Amino acid sequence: MADLYIALLHHPVYNKRGDVVTTSITGFDLHDIARSAITFGVKKYFVVNPLPAQQEFARRIFEFWMDEGSLEFNWTRAEAFKLVSIKGTLDEAISEVEKAEGQRPKVVATSAKPRTTISFEQLSAELKNGDQPVLLLFGTGWGMADEVFTRVDGVLPPIDGPSTYNHLSVRSATAIILDRLLGR
Amino acid sequence: MADLYIALLHHPVYNKRGDVVTTSITGFDLHDIARSAITFGVKKYFVVNPLPAQQEFARRIFEFWMDEGSLEFNWTRAEAFKLVSIKGTLDEAISEVEKAEGQRPKVVATSAKPRTTISFEQLSAELKNGDQPVLLLFGTGWGMADEVFTRVDGVLPPIDGPSTYNHLSVRSATAIILDRLLGR
Repeated sequence: MADLYIALLHHPVYNKRGDVVTTSITGFDLHDIARSAITFGVKKYFVVNPLPAQQEFARRIFEFWMDEGSLEFNWTRAEAFKLVSIKGTLDEAISEVEKAEGQRPKVVATSAKPRTTISFEQLSAELKNGDQPVLLLFGTGWGMADEVFTRVDGVLPPIDGPSTYNHLSVRSATAIILDRLLGR
Repeated sequence: MADLYIALLHHPVYNKRGDVVTTSITGFDLHDIARSAITFGVKKYFVVNPLPAQQEFARRIFEFWMDEGSLEFNWTRAEAFKLVSIKGTLDEAISEVEKAEGQRPKVVATSAKPRTTISFEQLSAELKNGDQPVLLLFGTGWGMADEVFTRVDGVLPPIDGPSTYNHLSVRSATAIILDRLLGR
């Protein structure tokens, strides 16, 4: 069984007009994705954002849910937040995995557009039978910039339902992809 | 192919102490679940809450995203919101399905606790090959009250990942369950 890591990138991503920007961290991305990550045995959930004020915002949310009163009211949030690690860049996240695992992870992007190079079944089998750790990337805004895709080792297919609508929230996409890779 | 409907219940649900309460509608439950619903071809997404002020809150969110400026900025939200129907009670939702379909739906609950009476495979096959519409119920707060479970026709299993952590957000659970029933 290989270890799975995930990263949510707030930079470099596109805005609606196709400019490369840094998006804001949202509370629900922290909560929902941390809960999905712990459910499916993800080793660490990297929140990647280069802006110090944004990193500070995320830390304040964690601190709130880790303090004594909140812990008593809802320990499941604090438990999930233990998985989260805030990073300034994707390279820092890759380095942390490499340091923890003793080898470079296979870096796999997700995308709402079809640029598929590896199937869910294939990556799931690699996770279950392999030993190279995997770092799975999720984008925010209007998707990760092309410069990210040029440096990854694989790209998973878009989530395809029966309709042609292709605009899931990143929270829903993460939940579905983790379930497809590691659920049952 | 049978039609699938979903309902998010804000009443009757439990709070942390086990009292039956009405929870508040949250914006992210409207957005994320509407997007998942349209992706997987769900016919209608009922938001069930008996409180007029809560219903009004939901309507204001829809109106904001349906107005001209928002439509131009992000038509995908308005598209997803067309699926949403606000109801005061579960019975009103069941009646609307019955009226649209000419027959009573099979009502199936989801639960984070194991009270399973029907598997994902079984319900998926019924949707793909059957003709009775299905209304799938999701709870908020600390879960739907027992009185809901006594009147449903079936209960799906909890989402089980490799860990014992069992506290997905309702947004993530809905995405995974729709994918298991109707994805690919």
